[in-house]
Amino acid sequence: MQAIVYHGPRDFRVEDVPDPKIQDTTDAVVRIERTAICGSDLHMYHGAPMPMTGFTIGHEFLGTIEDVGADVQHFRPGQRVLVSCTIGCGHCSLCSKELFSGCETTTALGPLTNVFGSPLHAGGQAEGARVPFADTNLLPLPEDVSDEQALFLTDILPTGYMGAEFAEVAPGDVVVVFGCGPVGTFAQRAAWLRGAACVIAVDLDDGRLAKAEARGCLPLNPTKQDLTETVRELTDGRGADAAIEAVGKASLVLSAIDVVRAGGRVAVIGVIAGEDVTLPFLQTMTGKNLTLRSGLVNPQRTYRELLALIRQGRLDPAEIITHRMPLASGVRGYEIFDAHEEDVLKVVLEP
Amino acid sequence: MQAIVYHGPRDFRVEDVPDPKIQDTTDAVVRIERTAICGSDLHMYHGAPMPMTGFTIGHEFLGTIEDVGADVQHFRPGQRVLVSCTIGCGHCSLCSKELFSGCETTTALGPLTNVFGSPLHAGGQAEGARVPFADTNLLPLPEDVSDEQALFLTDILPTGYMGAEFAEVAPGDVVVVFGCGPVGTFAQRAAWLRGAACVIAVDLDDGRLAKAEARGCLPLNPTKQDLTETVRELTDGRGADAAIEAVGKASLVLSAIDVVRAGGRVAVIGVIAGEDVTLPFLQTMTGKNLTLRSGLVNPQRTYRELLALIRQGRLDPAEIITHRMPLASGVRGYEIFDAHEEDVLKVVLEP
Amino acid sequence: MQAIVYHGPRDFRVEDVPDPKIQDTTDAVVRIERTAICGSDLHMYHGAPMPMTGFTIGHEFLGTIEDVGADVQHFRPGQRVLVSCTIGCGHCSLCSKELFSGCETTTALGPLTNVFGSPLHAGGQAEGARVPFADTNLLPLPEDVSDEQALFLTDILPTGYMGAEFAEVAPGDVVVVFGCGPVGTFAQRAAWLRGAACVIAVDLDDGRLAKAEARGCLPLNPTKQDLTETVRELTDGRGADAAIEAVGKASLVLSAIDVVRAGGRVAVIGVIAGEDVTLPFLQTMTGKNLTLRSGLVNPQRTYRELLALIRQGRLDPAEIITHRMPLASGVRGYEIFDAHEEDVLKVVLEP
Amino acid sequence: MQAIVYHGPRDFRVEDVPDPKIQDTTDAVVRIERTAICGSDLHMYHGAPMPMTGFTIGHEFLGTIEDVGADVQHFRPGQRVLVSCTIGCGHCSLCSKELFSGCETTTALGPLTNVFGSPLHAGGQAEGARVPFADTNLLPLPEDVSDEQALFLTDILPTGYMGAEFAEVAPGDVVVVFGCGPVGTFAQRAAWLRGAACVIAVDLDDGRLAKAEARGCLPLNPTKQDLTETVRELTDGRGADAAIEAVGKASLVLSAIDVVRAGGRVAVIGVIAGEDVTLPFLQTMTGKNLTLRSGLVNPQRTYRELLALIRQGRLDPAEIITHRMPLASGVRGYEIFDAHEEDVLKVVLEP
Repeated sequence: MQAIVYHGPRDFRVEDVPDPKIQDTTDAVVRIERTAICGSDLHMYHGAPMPMTGFTIGHEFLGTIEDVGADVQHFRPGQRVLVSCTIGCGHCSLCSKELFSGCETTTALGPLTNVFGSPLHAGGQAEGARVPFADTNLLPLPEDVSDEQALFLTDILPTGYMGAEFAEVAPGDVVVVFGCGPVGTFAQRAAWLRGAACVIAVDLDDGRLAKAEARGCLPLNPTKQDLTETVRELTDGRGADAAIEAVGKASLVLSAIDVVRAGGRVAVIGVIAGEDVTLPFLQTMTGKNLTLRSGLVNPQRTYRELLALIRQGRLDPAEIITHRMPLASGVRGYEIFDAHEEDVLKVVLEP
Repeated sequence: MQAIVYHGPRDFRVEDVPDPKIQDTTDAVVRIERTAICGSDLHMYHGAPMPMTGFTIGHEFLGTIEDVGADVQHFRPGQRVLVSCTIGCGHCSLCSKELFSGCETTTALGPLTNVFGSPLHAGGQAEGARVPFADTNLLPLPEDVSDEQALFLTDILPTGYMGAEFAEVAPGDVVVVFGCGPVGTFAQRAAWLRGAACVIAVDLDDGRLAKAEARGCLPLNPTKQDLTETVRELTDGRGADAAIEAVGKASLVLSAIDVVRAGGRVAVIGVIAGEDVTLPFLQTMTGKNLTLRSGLVNPQRTYRELLALIRQGRLDPAEIITHRMPLASGVRGYEIFDAHEEDVLKVVLEP
Repeated sequence: MQAIVYHGPRDFRVEDVPDPKIQDTTDAVVRIERTAICGSDLHMYHGAPMPMTGFTIGHEFLGTIEDVGADVQHFRPGQRVLVSCTIGCGHCSLCSKELFSGCETTTALGPLTNVFGSPLHAGGQAEGARVPFADTNLLPLPEDVSDEQALFLTDILPTGYMGAEFAEVAPGDVVVVFGCGPVGTFAQRAAWLRGAACVIAVDLDDGRLAKAEARGCLPLNPTKQDLTETVRELTDGRGADAAIEAVGKASLVLSAIDVVRAGGRVAVIGVIAGEDVTLPFLQTMTGKNLTLRSGLVNPQRTYRELLALIRQGRLDPAEIITHRMPLASGVRGYEIFDAHEEDVLKVVLEP
Repeated sequence: MQAIVYHGPRDFRVEDVPDPKIQDTTDAVVRIERTAICGSDLHMYHGAPMPMTGFTIGHEFLGTIEDVGADVQHFRPGQRVLVSCTIGCGHCSLCSKELFSGCETTTALGPLTNVFGSPLHAGGQAEGARVPFADTNLLPLPEDVSDEQALFLTDILPTGYMGAEFAEVAPGDVVVVFGCGPVGTFAQRAAWLRGAACVIAVDLDDGRLAKAEARGCLPLNPTKQDLTETVRELTDGRGADAAIEAVGKASLVLSAIDVVRAGGRVAVIGVIAGEDVTLPFLQTMTGKNLTLRSGLVNPQRTYRELLALIRQGRLDPAEIITHRMPLASGVRGYEIFDAHEEDVLKVVLEP
């Protein structure tokens, strides 16, 4: 089958790879029908160190089950499913707390883990994929939800939603979201869903800011406006109640800490690759009574509530798709996405 | 000054009463500029037993401070303020938990208490009122919020909001709200604010249902449609996640319990006067793992977050006002409200 | 194999029944090594209406796996396991919320359900049992925990613990627990675990009260002391913060509501068979801002934390065992337990 | 009156200063009867930069009210009171969230602020003190609690308790507390109160470790034992559920992050003076799904629950007192405390 294979920085290739096969009795094999390029895939593209080459990338995909292992209880061939980007065994102490992305069964590294330099599990920018612990990591795709509406339930929609959870956004809050890319967009949506009074959307790209404004956010380009001053005015000098970093830069974590009020909450859902974050702890964390939280997404945990919101028309995740192309053109998809060409926000590939 | 005075069921009169005066060092006196008739005032109107006559009714009002006692720290004459319908001392163990409506200082009965047969404190359908423990029970009225937007912060807006809190409405929930009157309207708004996927609005009045539909709710008239069946279809047979009773009828508490799923939450914010609620406990509460919660509002507790939502345009509480008239016409206001004349939803009086 | 079989009120018999067998691919068969008589079994003993006779009773048991179905992933023959008294499919929307006892897969009625008149699933006062959805409903029994310490993890230990959770016991609380039987004992232990400042243990049996006092509780026999007065003195007139009903009487639900303060929480973990609970709603629930919560236990949900407490010596559930006897003497066990003979608190049977 | 006055590092002097007087209508003046030396006072002693000299230090004290301003509502001369170490106005948006230590009224800096280089408010190692916003910052001292039991309610008892709150300690948790000094001791007590299964107490001082062991903790001297290995064994390789840093060293924040499991919580209640904390963010915070929280204490917020625990004998904060001496000997008290002489844990001064 065809797959996008990592051969080094900026050297991703569409090539033939062996078809996936059941290896364990708890596996499923899925024929992939939609797959997307994620901002975190660009870390590899830009040169994040990887221990090997020759593996399939990609961790946002859906399709139809082709085969299941002997111990799979809840899924059968022919069912349409989403595949969680993080893979848990479903049974260890962390999976039992719905922390699938922290699963103690280390052999179960999921497709997202190649972003972190652990590409032991083949990804999903391909025509098919093997899914370990299928009962835990497959999510049924209902007939009344379109592929494009459902696709981002595999990673970035629950990631944005987790941002608003980690930042404990509550009714009446003033919330700052750093980043208007795909994850930032969904973090902004999630802040509205949790009752934010005002969502300030920060980005350098005025096109993306215009879209954020259309979503009801207050757009802010920090090269043109003073974020601190804007927040002060909105909050009578107090500071924002919560901030969400959805870009992945150490300096923005410090900006987020700076912009929140005493007792504020800062969530980091961007992937901060290759940088440390240095905190003047006493003045910021202690003196301001802050909570700082980060983590990897667990799409399995919030699948049902997000699906309900999509089915009832309260969320339309397909809003972010700007480009659709065949899997065979995936290399071009990466070029467009990397270069911010053609006002790209999200590229979906069709195997 | 003029005030609406209780003389018995359906015998409310506008008459002259003595001006309010500072009695304790923690009192304030407020000149009233807007006051509203509440559904709970109708209990007295309809004959709920009262221990006395001759007292001023009303518990939703705002105005300008005329005088403060010697120990008032945070308010001064000339300030425009909202008055909480429940009055706490601000210092006892329950007030310190923000349960002002359960204040242990029993002499501090607030204006809402006349609804419950304890009319020891003069109400606010009048030209002025004395407010005990002013530092705790006055809420500043900012200049950029209009009187009509702010007025319901004194009672029914936080009551509706409390309904969604008590029912623990969370993103993705299917929520049933019994009642599309003023409180039900705000409970529906609050359910949306907390991320409900679907709000089913139940009422017998098709005019009110049409307004609920315009707010995004699924309208349901139980004399024409089957509530249980509708909820089943929406939830794959499971039942609603939460239900809010905003009418004040024992039978609707049972309907609410019936319509929620196992593990569901039922909030009762309607005032159930003169009726017991009989629960088949094992089959409902225990067998269904239910949480049942009721209470009186604490406007002081949620004032800031609701005000932020109003200021940012996320809530417009004035949407419910259908009638405005002088205080002198208050008796006619009661007649209209009681008889559901002229598609009335809320009557505001101007002293 | 031998089992205790229901033939009618006070007509329980030890007799030979067919051995359990794998019926579904997700089943396990367990050879039972310890099983206990539960207070809720007495409802059948006393005449609660049952739709049939001839079924095996009992829902608190542990043992060794003898066989597993083809789709069982996480358990193998030879493993020692606890069996949850409530059975969930592990995959429906309620199981995914850890509400296994509300499982939507209605064919999965667990052994506890015979207490509620649905004896479709053979119980565990027997030499063996079939367990549906074994991956969800079996809990591994570690080697360093004794059978007697672990046995009550199947039902009454997590039930008592759930009582303290439902009553939201928090550090510094004054808590009233109605009942000093097995479930009440564990509710008292759980209240201490959650930081209660004072636990008032209510019972009519002075022997049980003496044991509660030895656990650090304040013992109270309502025929000899005034509960309301005692609580008033302890709380400066305010009322208890939380109350847990662990007996199963409608009148005690009302006593619990009466004894808590404004804003208090009442949890009902006793099984209230054949009685309605009639609430003067406005005066109690609304006027006092109460939360009332009940439900059936989900031993799977809290297994890990309770096991950790047992392993570290912070809980010793075997403290309640007063009688140990062979399964063959189970009928005598019921007689002793029913008649409160020999200071019985808990009877354990050994098949 | 006498007071301990800052003249520079290691230059604290007992000298005569002017008596405190009412300055604002919301002030009280308190005659001090017990005052303690806090570990955070040592930062000044060791040379933390201060903008001025000549101010009174100390922020843990209790006494009797001598005078109150005209606007004080709830306190009168003659009452015995505790004084919160952080001072809030009681009315701004942060005080209304019980974040008194983040009060927006910047003129209200409390005595603890001298620890942070803002000694604008005279401290309490003196014979008397002025207390701003007395209604908010005085806490009544009941007759049935001794001075020594109550004294630490002003700072370090609620600080330790806040540590267990920030670390979200829950029943069954394995918790690591770094530090067995006064704050660490109370953090350990609070972890037990919240149901920890195991509390690992880390310190370099074997005498303090012996006391921690007597409190039920597992003592660990990192120069003699491997913390990581110990935690691994206790948790089947998973890591601790929560960690509390109660020393104030950047390196220990990293140790705390290292020792917790995926999804763990790290609370920092030590004052990290003059050091940044550098986090390898992706590998720790994001990859491990961590929550990191710090802050300054709000004694007013948790006063009632901690007092209830003391009154019922569940906490005895006087356990930490090792030295009692007259205020006049305060300089010697600092020497003993700084040098860890005579197994000192806490020095209390009597004016």
